[in-house]
Amino acid sequence: MQDEDLRVAVVGAGIMGGDHISRLTNKVSGARVVSVVEPDDGRAASALLTAPGARQRATIEDALGHDDIDAVIVANPGPFHEATLLPCLEAGIPTLCEKPLTPDSLGALRVMEAEQRAGRPLIQVGFMRRFDAEYRQLRELVQSGDAGALLALHCAHRNVATPPGYVESMLITDSVVHEIDVVAWLADEPITAVEVKKPRRNSRAPEGLREPQLVLLETASGVLADVEINVNCGFGYQVTTDAVFESALASIGRTTGITQWRDGRMIAAEHTTYTTRFEAAYDVEVQRWVDATRRGVIDGPTTWDGYLAAVVCEAALEAQASGRRVEVAYVDRPAFYAA
Amino acid sequence: MQDEDLRVAVVGAGIMGGDHISRLTNKVSGARVVSVVEPDDGRAASALLTAPGARQRATIEDALGHDDIDAVIVANPGPFHEATLLPCLEAGIPTLCEKPLTPDSLGALRVMEAEQRAGRPLIQVGFMRRFDAEYRQLRELVQSGDAGALLALHCAHRNVATPPGYVESMLITDSVVHEIDVVAWLADEPITAVEVKKPRRNSRAPEGLREPQLVLLETASGVLADVEINVNCGFGYQVTTDAVFESALASIGRTTGITQWRDGRMIAAEHTTYTTRFEAAYDVEVQRWVDATRRGVIDGPTTWDGYLAAVVCEAALEAQASGRRVEVAYVDRPAFYAA
Amino acid sequence: MQDEDLRVAVVGAGIMGGDHISRLTNKVSGARVVSVVEPDDGRAASALLTAPGARQRATIEDALGHDDIDAVIVANPGPFHEATLLPCLEAGIPTLCEKPLTPDSLGALRVMEAEQRAGRPLIQVGFMRRFDAEYRQLRELVQSGDAGALLALHCAHRNVATPPGYVESMLITDSVVHEIDVVAWLADEPITAVEVKKPRRNSRAPEGLREPQLVLLETASGVLADVEINVNCGFGYQVTTDAVFESALASIGRTTGITQWRDGRMIAAEHTTYTTRFEAAYDVEVQRWVDATRRGVIDGPTTWDGYLAAVVCEAALEAQASGRRVEVAYVDRPAFYAA
Amino acid sequence: MQDEDLRVAVVGAGIMGGDHISRLTNKVSGARVVSVVEPDDGRAASALLTAPGARQRATIEDALGHDDIDAVIVANPGPFHEATLLPCLEAGIPTLCEKPLTPDSLGALRVMEAEQRAGRPLIQVGFMRRFDAEYRQLRELVQSGDAGALLALHCAHRNVATPPGYVESMLITDSVVHEIDVVAWLADEPITAVEVKKPRRNSRAPEGLREPQLVLLETASGVLADVEINVNCGFGYQVTTDAVFESALASIGRTTGITQWRDGRMIAAEHTTYTTRFEAAYDVEVQRWVDATRRGVIDGPTTWDGYLAAVVCEAALEAQASGRRVEVAYVDRPAFYAA
Repeated sequence: MQDEDLRVAVVGAGIMGGDHISRLTNKVSGARVVSVVEPDDGRAASALLTAPGARQRATIEDALGHDDIDAVIVANPGPFHEATLLPCLEAGIPTLCEKPLTPDSLGALRVMEAEQRAGRPLIQVGFMRRFDAEYRQLRELVQSGDAGALLALHCAHRNVATPPGYVESMLITDSVVHEIDVVAWLADEPITAVEVKKPRRNSRAPEGLREPQLVLLETASGVLADVEINVNCGFGYQVTTDAVFESALASIGRTTGITQWRDGRMIAAEHTTYTTRFEAAYDVEVQRWVDATRRGVIDGPTTWDGYLAAVVCEAALEAQASGRRVEVAYVDRPAFYAA
Repeated sequence: MQDEDLRVAVVGAGIMGGDHISRLTNKVSGARVVSVVEPDDGRAASALLTAPGARQRATIEDALGHDDIDAVIVANPGPFHEATLLPCLEAGIPTLCEKPLTPDSLGALRVMEAEQRAGRPLIQVGFMRRFDAEYRQLRELVQSGDAGALLALHCAHRNVATPPGYVESMLITDSVVHEIDVVAWLADEPITAVEVKKPRRNSRAPEGLREPQLVLLETASGVLADVEINVNCGFGYQVTTDAVFESALASIGRTTGITQWRDGRMIAAEHTTYTTRFEAAYDVEVQRWVDATRRGVIDGPTTWDGYLAAVVCEAALEAQASGRRVEVAYVDRPAFYAA
Repeated sequence: MQDEDLRVAVVGAGIMGGDHISRLTNKVSGARVVSVVEPDDGRAASALLTAPGARQRATIEDALGHDDIDAVIVANPGPFHEATLLPCLEAGIPTLCEKPLTPDSLGALRVMEAEQRAGRPLIQVGFMRRFDAEYRQLRELVQSGDAGALLALHCAHRNVATPPGYVESMLITDSVVHEIDVVAWLADEPITAVEVKKPRRNSRAPEGLREPQLVLLETASGVLADVEINVNCGFGYQVTTDAVFESALASIGRTTGITQWRDGRMIAAEHTTYTTRFEAAYDVEVQRWVDATRRGVIDGPTTWDGYLAAVVCEAALEAQASGRRVEVAYVDRPAFYAA
Repeated sequence: MQDEDLRVAVVGAGIMGGDHISRLTNKVSGARVVSVVEPDDGRAASALLTAPGARQRATIEDALGHDDIDAVIVANPGPFHEATLLPCLEAGIPTLCEKPLTPDSLGALRVMEAEQRAGRPLIQVGFMRRFDAEYRQLRELVQSGDAGALLALHCAHRNVATPPGYVESMLITDSVVHEIDVVAWLADEPITAVEVKKPRRNSRAPEGLREPQLVLLETASGVLADVEINVNCGFGYQVTTDAVFESALASIGRTTGITQWRDGRMIAAEHTTYTTRFEAAYDVEVQRWVDATRRGVIDGPTTWDGYLAAVVCEAALEAQASGRRVEVAYVDRPAFYAA
């Protein structure tokens, strides 16, 4: 461990960027925010209240030019990720890039090429579920083999309500993208086909949004994951997985916390937002990224994982539109990204 | 098994008696109600609607005199039990007597003497918790010894509200009497001392009723049971036990049934009355009593168990009044009631 | 309610028939077994030990000929059901017929025709899940509408292991047939399409048996049910349903019973057989059938329900073989079977 | 928030001190360890591996003399706390002192006097349960009043096994001391009487250790807390509380995490050590202490709370030895420690 704090630039001062600024400042050891890259002065000013020592920068190039940055967290909208990552790679600066790496697989391929030119892996992708304690326990169970092979996964991904502007494709690219990554990570093999089923529509969903949907993901060895994506359910923010093994079932994501009995009922509070459900996972992700970055390594999901997710998302969008099962094909894995 | 149904007289057509009449008529195999012993014509008429083949009898002597009865269920108020049981014993008729056997231990001793004169055990006492599946599993765990010795029990006995006329002594004689029996049954040894603690009073309790209370029961080998008796809790009818073993904890009485997530909460319905909480236990108790009676045996709690409970209740009332720990002493167990 | 017991013939003295004989004799009120229709003398003799007053009959015609029967329970293998039901219908005798009504839809149509000739509904089909307390609570929730419309169901149907002779088609006809009935009953509308997905094979399954499978059922309004059928899972007999409503989630089939903490773990026993998991449902089903039959009515699933299930099973077998989505078509519902 | 990290000396490099050094270095934002006060060179060297920038100091006076310390965490054995705290107070240095503040109430009074001479509150006592999320939710429920008044608490405090040298008095001073603090904190009023009951002894306990015990704590308004202290239970590290309100029950400390079904059982891992059970509470406690200390305030339990616990412990030891109920008396609360 170095003596000095990791000096971080956070790109984007929206909700997610603001969370990261606050986390780095108030919770994480060994790092501090030195730059907030945000063209909007109002947003930047409000973010700087949380991180008094930091400066606003209008662009990533501007931030990199001041030569006071050790690492970057990318939390602007997905369409801007490529343009943010490329100069960071050129400058040899490690980044933690929020999902998606890029909105499409071609962008991801370009980022992969640039990273290879940079000579060493520099990008970690923000699939923070991999840092959730229960997901980790589930993966350990898969890898231990002591429940037999993994056969199937039943996933549910439920949100209270969608924000304005949420359209059908975002069911895949904003929401199921988490399961797309974590299913491959749990099964330890790529997703090879995808299909989308559409049950009866929830009348709570905004006009034009056809959901819930059931997304079926198949992996190379045949693990079948069904994902209920259900984003206007009203009752809670709930992310659960039941994993079917050859000789066991394992379940994560149960409701926890204080339980009350009142008025003839047993009651426990369910989460209503990802910020409480996955708060600890975000904290662990960022602390581990800071620690690894200070040691000069990456120990989370890489650009390759971001590329895989981008390819599956494209296939899932096609499946969503067509109602058909769509097979998934990837470029060969570069040796640079050897597992 | 005999071909013929057991012909049963039910004494008392109140809530409990009515339940038994309905149970014998509609659920239990191998028995039918032939007499309803109830001086109140209105109650009797209403009970006879459920058991169309039965006749009203004004007194137990009247019912016994018609010579058409194989067995009796005693469900009139406790103070009348002795006067009901004695003629049944004299007639050699098997009975299932609702708790308490008698309100005091002297009455219980007189019933024991009469039963011994009758020459064989005829009375089963209605401690129906012994027929609840989870209590039975807990007792099996005690007896198996594979969790080590039983050390302590934490019991809770919660009611929504008390009926009119419920006074402080009834906390012991009507409510904790169930734990008094079942603690001795689980520990498989008699209770030797009792003490009553009075926490802060629930303002929901009717004027003059000082509750909840915490009743401490000690058994011969030192098992310590604390019983929370809490009968105006409003939120449910809840009977739970946590059993502390040398190398395990076992818990019974969890809330079960359909679980819902709504409005940011996980919700399951809790029982609000003993009739649903212990419905299956009552059914099993009565079916097993009918079966055993037809075979000419008793396989439930006996008069001796009823006597033990009566003695502990007397000690508990003294402890409740005095605030002191009261030791319990019993007559020697007659060979007639050998375990 | 009549004074006299319902005199029942049980057809088939295998495991299921034996269960019914024991249930009618020892648990159910208002009925007794008078005939056991079983050509195998050994089986019959063993069954008669449980029902001492009953007689063996070689055939249903033989049993009906003795004119001492009020009702029949059909528990022989499915291929014999039609030949058993037709003479019962001709004799005007009410029957409780174990599932499947018939192995194919044509047989079911013939039974429906014979029943209509008999002039009144006489057959109840043994879909006993409809009598399980939690399924009933779930259906009440659907019908109350207070969680919004039902959108999707996630069902799991897990068995410890398959008996010898269990082949792939039986995943549908023996196992998922329960969900096929209960999904339509919960959604209160017929199933209109079916599809079968095959995840990675469980190596615990007997050679040649490709399972688990995921069966997708669609109803008329678009409710999508996914059913995991998983019959060599080793770990338990587990039947669960998560119902997704517009504004709630409801879950049934949780593990219940005594909970222990030992050796660093919390442990509760899971069922390992349907006989304990659904014991109460069977008891309720048969008691209610006896009660209704004595009143001359049917209040359970009818021949029409049996026909619907047979049609969906045929479609599911086609879907299982082809890998394709198969739409389901039914004959028009006769007025005789008006809901 | 200041720009500079809080420079902390950790006194004691045993298990607890080592944990704090690692926590401050690797997890907590805004602080770093500059001194490890530990006379044992081996322990100090091993602790310094975790905190490479820190120096060993032989005594607290030595550490204070170097004038490079902003705050102190006291994690040496309780009998040394007073001698550690007094020079810190004299130097005006804020401290987080692990429980117990002092082993006896006289020592606590002397610390209180010294703190008052220092002119402002400087000491926070390490009752970290107050920082556990579920305890906080429970306290909020008490304070909201919307479940009615708090009436009783059922607490369990279970450890896998005791370390060598653990004697009966430590049941109170090392273990129940946590409940002594948290019961008063939950009830928001002081404990006024204490009594100790001794159930059957666990044969797993080391020779001479008579446990489990049941400690009864009464508060000023009559809230009655029973605490099962059970420290050789083998099965887990388990800390639970059931809170009885006038119209609700609330329960905290349920087993959480991944759940498995295997071999006919449902299984979830229970904690086996406080380091995992309360890891998050320790992290929150220390982060909040660092934040508050940098702002020049205290927002956790104070010296007054440490004094209250010391008085109750003395009474509990007398109750443990005598078997009698012992009333508790405190000095008047100095205005300096106004709530």
